[in-house]
Order: sequence, then C-alpha cells, then structure tokens
Amino acid sequence: MTINLKNFLSDKKGLSKMGEFQELKGIEGLEISSVSADLYDNGRDDLTLFYFREGAHYACINTSSTILSETINWNQKSNKKSIKALLVNTKNANTFTGDQGIYSLDEISKTLSRCLTLKESKSEGGINETVKIKDILFASTGVIGEKFPVEKINNTIQILVDKLRSEQNKIIWVKTASAIMTTDTRPKLAYEEIVAGSKTIKIAGIAKGSGMIAPNLATMLSFIFTDADIAPNILRSLIKKAAANSFNAISVDSDKSTNDMVAIFSTKKVKLGYNRSIDDPIIQKFEIALKKLCLNLAQQIVADGEGAKKFVIVKVSNAKSVVSAKKISFSIANSPLFKTAIAGEDPNWGRIIMGIGKSGENIDKDKLSIKFGDLMVAEKGKISESYNEEKLKEYMKWDSIKIEVDLNMGSDFFECYTCDFTHDYININADYRS
Amino acid sequence: MTINLKNFLSDKKGLSKMGEFQELKGIEGLEISSVSADLYDNGRDDLTLFYFREGAHYACINTSSTILSETINWNQKSNKKSIKALLVNTKNANTFTGDQGIYSLDEISKTLSRCLTLKESKSEGGINETVKIKDILFASTGVIGEKFPVEKINNTIQILVDKLRSEQNKIIWVKTASAIMTTDTRPKLAYEEIVAGSKTIKIAGIAKGSGMIAPNLATMLSFIFTDADIAPNILRSLIKKAAANSFNAISVDSDKSTNDMVAIFSTKKVKLGYNRSIDDPIIQKFEIALKKLCLNLAQQIVADGEGAKKFVIVKVSNAKSVVSAKKISFSIANSPLFKTAIAGEDPNWGRIIMGIGKSGENIDKDKLSIKFGDLMVAEKGKISESYNEEKLKEYMKWDSIKIEVDLNMGSDFFECYTCDFTHDYININADYRS
Repeated sequence: MTINLKNFLSDKKGLSKMGEFQELKGIEGLEISSVSADLYDNGRDDLTLFYFREGAHYACINTSSTILSETINWNQKSNKKSIKALLVNTKNANTFTGDQGIYSLDEISKTLSRCLTLKESKSEGGINETVKIKDILFASTGVIGEKFPVEKINNTIQILVDKLRSEQNKIIWVKTASAIMTTDTRPKLAYEEIVAGSKTIKIAGIAKGSGMIAPNLATMLSFIFTDADIAPNILRSLIKKAAANSFNAISVDSDKSTNDMVAIFSTKKVKLGYNRSIDDPIIQKFEIALKKLCLNLAQQIVADGEGAKKFVIVKVSNAKSVVSAKKISFSIANSPLFKTAIAGEDPNWGRIIMGIGKSGENIDKDKLSIKFGDLMVAEKGKISESYNEEKLKEYMKWDSIKIEVDLNMGSDFFECYTCDFTHDYININADYRS
Repeated sequence: MTINLKNFLSDKKGLSKMGEFQELKGIEGLEISSVSADLYDNGRDDLTLFYFREGAHYACINTSSTILSETINWNQKSNKKSIKALLVNTKNANTFTGDQGIYSLDEISKTLSRCLTLKESKSEGGINETVKIKDILFASTGVIGEKFPVEKINNTIQILVDKLRSEQNKIIWVKTASAIMTTDTRPKLAYEEIVAGSKTIKIAGIAKGSGMIAPNLATMLSFIFTDADIAPNILRSLIKKAAANSFNAISVDSDKSTNDMVAIFSTKKVKLGYNRSIDDPIIQKFEIALKKLCLNLAQQIVADGEGAKKFVIVKVSNAKSVVSAKKISFSIANSPLFKTAIAGEDPNWGRIIMGIGKSGENIDKDKLSIKFGDLMVAEKGKISESYNEEKLKEYMKWDSIKIEVDLNMGSDFFECYTCDFTHDYININADYRS
C-alpha cells in the first residue's frame, strides 16, 4: 500500500497519473472543498476548507521558529480541544504582515463563521449550532511580508462553503492535496487503515513541501484526518511521537519556515470506548499506522524537495544517544557540499567525514565505518580495503541513496531523509517571487 | 592600501593583473619556496615551505571540527612556542588517512629536518643548529580520505629547500599565495605596516578558501608573518581577537573543514623590548593593523567563495548581546534560500525574516527593522511604508550587498560576510574530485 519511492522518483515527470497514488478513502464527519480565490492570477485552486460539522478533536505541532505567521498566532488563541473548520491558503504566508494580517484573519473568520452557521441552519438534519470564530483554524503558506489578500479570500468564502462535500474519493483527495501546494511538483497523500475489533479505523493524510524544509517543520503543512474517536491529549502525544522520526527527520535545505504545522483531526465517528490510554492495544496499533503514514508523507516531501533528483537516507547507527545520532545525521544531510556531491553522483565520502566532524559530537574516528548502500567505503579511520570506486560510481546513479555511518560507540540510531542539491533548486529559489 | 572589494569583484574575470594586489614587502627572517610535487599531474605549484632560520614565535587557531586532519594532530604535538618551518601541501587533506597519513608526516618531517640541517651547516654564516622534527608544522588542504602522496612530496623536499629565498617581493608573495590555492580563483594577500618609534613593523598575510567556509575556520588556511618580536602568548591572544570578527565572521556554505588553520609567525627581527603586555600602546597599534589585515583576507575569501558573484554583509545591530547578534547574522547568511535570492537579485526580505526566526533567538518582531543598503524594507512588524521595489531591484544588481537588521533590543552588534549561492557553486562541487 506504500508508494515505492524509487519508482515514484523515476516517474517524477509524469505527474498526474492517478494510478501512482494510494487509494485514499473518505473520512466520515469531514467535508472538504477547494477553489481558486485567484491568488495566483491563473485560476489554480489556492483556498481549501476542511469542515467538521460535529466538531473534531485535534492536536497540532507548529514551527519552532521564533517569528510566527499570524495564522499560528491565531491558532494558539483558538479552542484547544475541539474545532469546526480549518482554512488553508497558499501564495501568501501571512507572516510579517502586521496589523493588516491580524485584521484579515478577524474578517475572514467572521465571514466563514457566518457562512457555515447559515449552511447549518438551512441544511436538512442540520445541527443548528453556531460556528464560532474560535472554532476556526488557519494555515497559510507562501511569500512572507506581502499584504495579505483579505478581499480575494473573503469574497470566495461563500463559494467555498457552498462547494463543501462530505464524500472523499481518490480524485477529491488528489485535488485537495494539489490545492495546498506551492513549489511542489506533485501532491502528497497517504492512507492507512486498521481494524479494531469489528470496526475499521481510517487515517488519511495530505502534505505539502517543498523548500525551507528542515527539522522542526519548515514550510511544510500536513493535515491528517481520522474517524477514530481519540482524545486530544492522546492525539497530541501520538502526533509528537510520529513526527519525531518523520516530519522532524527530513531536510531539504536546512531552512525553517515561520508557518508550518502538522495537525491531526479526529471526527470521533468510530467510537473506541472511553479512557483509552496511550498503552492501550488499539491506540498502539493506531500509533504504528500513524507513524507509517507520517513517514510516507515526510519521504514524499523530501523526494519532491525543490530541485530534487535523488532521495537520500542518512542513517547514523550505534551512537551513544539518539540526540547524538540525530545531530550527526543532520549535520551530514544539511551540508551543501554533501548534497552537491550527491547531485554530481560523486561518491565523495570525505564530505561525510566533514559532516560528522562539523556536528561537534565526540566520535572515535578509528571506530567508525561508512557504507553507501551495501558498499563499505571507510572503516578503522581510513579508506576501506574493499573500497571499489567503480561499484560506488554505479551506486551513485541510483535514485535513492542510503548512507550509513556506524559509530560503534553505543546502540542508538537516527535516520534522516534528504535530497540532493541541484541547479533546479537555484532556479526555483533565485526567482521564487516573480 | 586596502583592496576595493567592489572593483575587485567586478574585475574577477581578469585575475592575473598584478596591479590589483597590495604591495607586499618582505619579512626579515622568513624564507619561502613553492614548487610542484606534481600532486595535480599538471605541474602547478602545490608544495610550499616557509622557513625561519632563527626560529619564529607562533600562535595558531585550528578548526573546531571533531574530526581532525593528521596535520592538525601533528602540530598539536609540536613545539608550542617557537618553530622553524611550515610545510603546506594542496590536493590532499591528509584526513581520514589512518596510519598511512601519520607515517607520511613522520617520513616527510625527517627528510625536511635533514635537508634543512644540511643547508644550515653548508651556508655561509649558517647557525649550524639542528632543525628538529618537532620544529616543523604542517598544513594540508584538499580531498579527504585519499592516500597521502608521501613519495611525491618526499622526493620534492630537497628541491624545495634548495629554492628557499630570503627576499620576498610582490611577485613572490603572489606566487606563494597561488601555490596554496585549491578551488580559489585568485590568490589572497594582505599587508599592513605600522611605525613603532623609530622602527617599522611589517605584517604580511596570505590565505586560501574557498568552499567549506563557515565560522570557526573551514577549509581555510591563512598564514600571517611579522617581523615584530612579540611573545607567543601575546600573539595567541591577538590572533584570537582578530579572527573573531574576520575569519570567524565569514561563511561561504556553512560547512566546516577538518583541516583549517590560521597561524601567525613572528621572526623576532624588530625588537620591541621585553614584557610588552596586551595593553601596551605598540601592541594595541599592532592589534588594529592585524585586525585590518585579517578582515581584508577574510573578505577576499568570501568574495572568491565557490561560485560567488556577489559579496554580502549581514549586520545585526542593537542586539541584547554579541552572541545573539552573531547567531542571527549567521542564521541569515547561511540560509540557502537567502543566498539563492541574492544570486537571483531578488530582494526577497521574507527570507531574512525566516533566517531571524530560525536562529531561535528571541526577538520582538514589532521592533525590528530591515535595511538593504540605505533602503528601509521592513519596520514595526510589517513592510515599510517607504518600501520601493524598483529601487530595491536596482540595489540588488550591485556586486556588494549590505543587509542590516536592527533589533532595537540592546546595543551590541555583529557583522558577518558571505556570498551568494550560484549555479557555479554546484558546478564546482558536484564534481570536485574528478
């Protein structure tokens, strides 16, 4: 059910083949619509609404940047446990927009709450409950510092609400994941299902990248939806654990955005009974599925990193601690010299040595070994006796490269995911705004 | 007397015009030779010897990488206060070379000590003193992990010693600075002179970059020579202070090498009298000149950064501390997104906001302002009212760009120096080894 990332990369040019994507199913209790508010002046979908008629439990992880988007500031003042709607726009980050950005969210939230309340009061079986502005979350991605397009968005809210649909099929999910993209070249989707007794629990997730990606979330948005009725505090601890080795284990360019969020929403439709703790077998099953889904999305983000031609895994094993392994793996993965060598298909393992040294972590160079895939390149403080440049060059042509640094100092490990650094990265970023 | 960096950059294509360089004079007590040991298989000079017949006081700052070149390990076991020779090779870093790298230095130091001792015993007025292997320092720059070319170097030592010359003119200095280059496109030289009573003190320095440059020295070598008789402990404190705002204030790609060193040597020829403390007026005059020289060399390294088309100053002012200002300035300067925007001549100040936020330093976004040159772009938490995109675009076309972030939170500042991130960086680094 997982995407074969290698094929995925090879097929990168032929984007819109629906067959490449997982078969995502609908989540009961969730309604979605995406439209164009003409933020790009080209008619593409740029505004997406997720609506939970009966509310959703949620948990959210935000960027660790010390400068925050006004959307993140807004969300931090919203209802903490249950919300009704999430509005996502692209093109403008609503960061460093000052009062205008804050005022915009006030205006839009009022319009949205009015339209949603009206929809409910009209609808058959409507629950006739007011949607409060505190029940609304926002997410924005795009350029920092430009005036937030409040009028364009405000004028589109009614259409967006009118177009809400409670069924999701594969086409809807792909359309939704596409509507939240910026420089992504393809939508990112993942789906998992688990069986809990007689019930089936669904988890559907979408994400967007694809530059400014670094540990602790960076111009990355990911929204995950499940029908399982899981309490907000449990959701929070599950999403934190899942993000640690997925969204927080990826890096495209070591930069970090002011806007990013990973959020999980539970529509509470599949009742699991109350007071299920984090150690409960069903919650543990859910945790495994959620981790798998997050890793899948995170890897898709890296594989579609700006200009990426290769997917790279940097694993640091037998470290003294996970913290140490993580620091070393990111020190390698974030190095422009390492990433350009990968782009050039050059097995320049000296740059891995450089990355290890640069991390500041104490290691014993006579103990460490470095492998490219199954090929040993360095061990015992020097080049390996089985070093074979021809085989290595052949390996470097692959779409997915795995580097393993074995420190031989302990038993902990960390694996991070990155991509190569290509001319296209510069092409994309030297002129992103125009 | 300083190089005009702006012109320097514009003239980058026409490298070998001697007129561009400062007029460096000779340092009494120093002998230099550079030859080709054929390490590049193309006859370029790759081996340089600096010899101090009567010894030199010295002080040295090494890379902070936790993986060190065997040359750095060697130096750390050498005489701490006074040395006789420094041998510099390019092409091979002697890092991660294991026993072979260590053995190589043993072999070469023996040959060099023998040749130098022999030279002394033969020379007219020779001091007839043995040059011990502990009197020799090494510096290497080049590829990591390849077998160290001990035979080629060892076989060239005699020629190198034979060619030692005790006079340096501009041509010799340019030749020497060229012999230590790797991917540099031009030699880096600087010179200062101060008058102390009836005496003239000379300071001459050379340096090489140009990738893997980041704070705390990174594939950077710089050797500074003076005739002023200054004690090793004073030299150490002077070079540390000078490096803080020069060699440790530059970044080309945020990577850090295993090999770098900045060293200052005093031939003791100009006697200043004993026990001159760090507060002594002459030492203070020397300190100012040394700082100027180091900044000059450091800026030349950045201006010749791999693929660099533009020189960039990132100044963070009115910070709560120098540490905080430094962290923020490097967070901006090291951002690939910021550097590609500079390359694209795009005044994308949102990426500066991103860089500030990514630093992790607490700031007050409503207080900070951002200027490009004299043009205010952001203030009071939003885009400036005097923001003028046309003027900014015009400014971005300059060869030297100055970004100033005023935090308005205190009175400390830090200025760092970097360059843009261009296609040429990738061209150079995707295929450096071949």
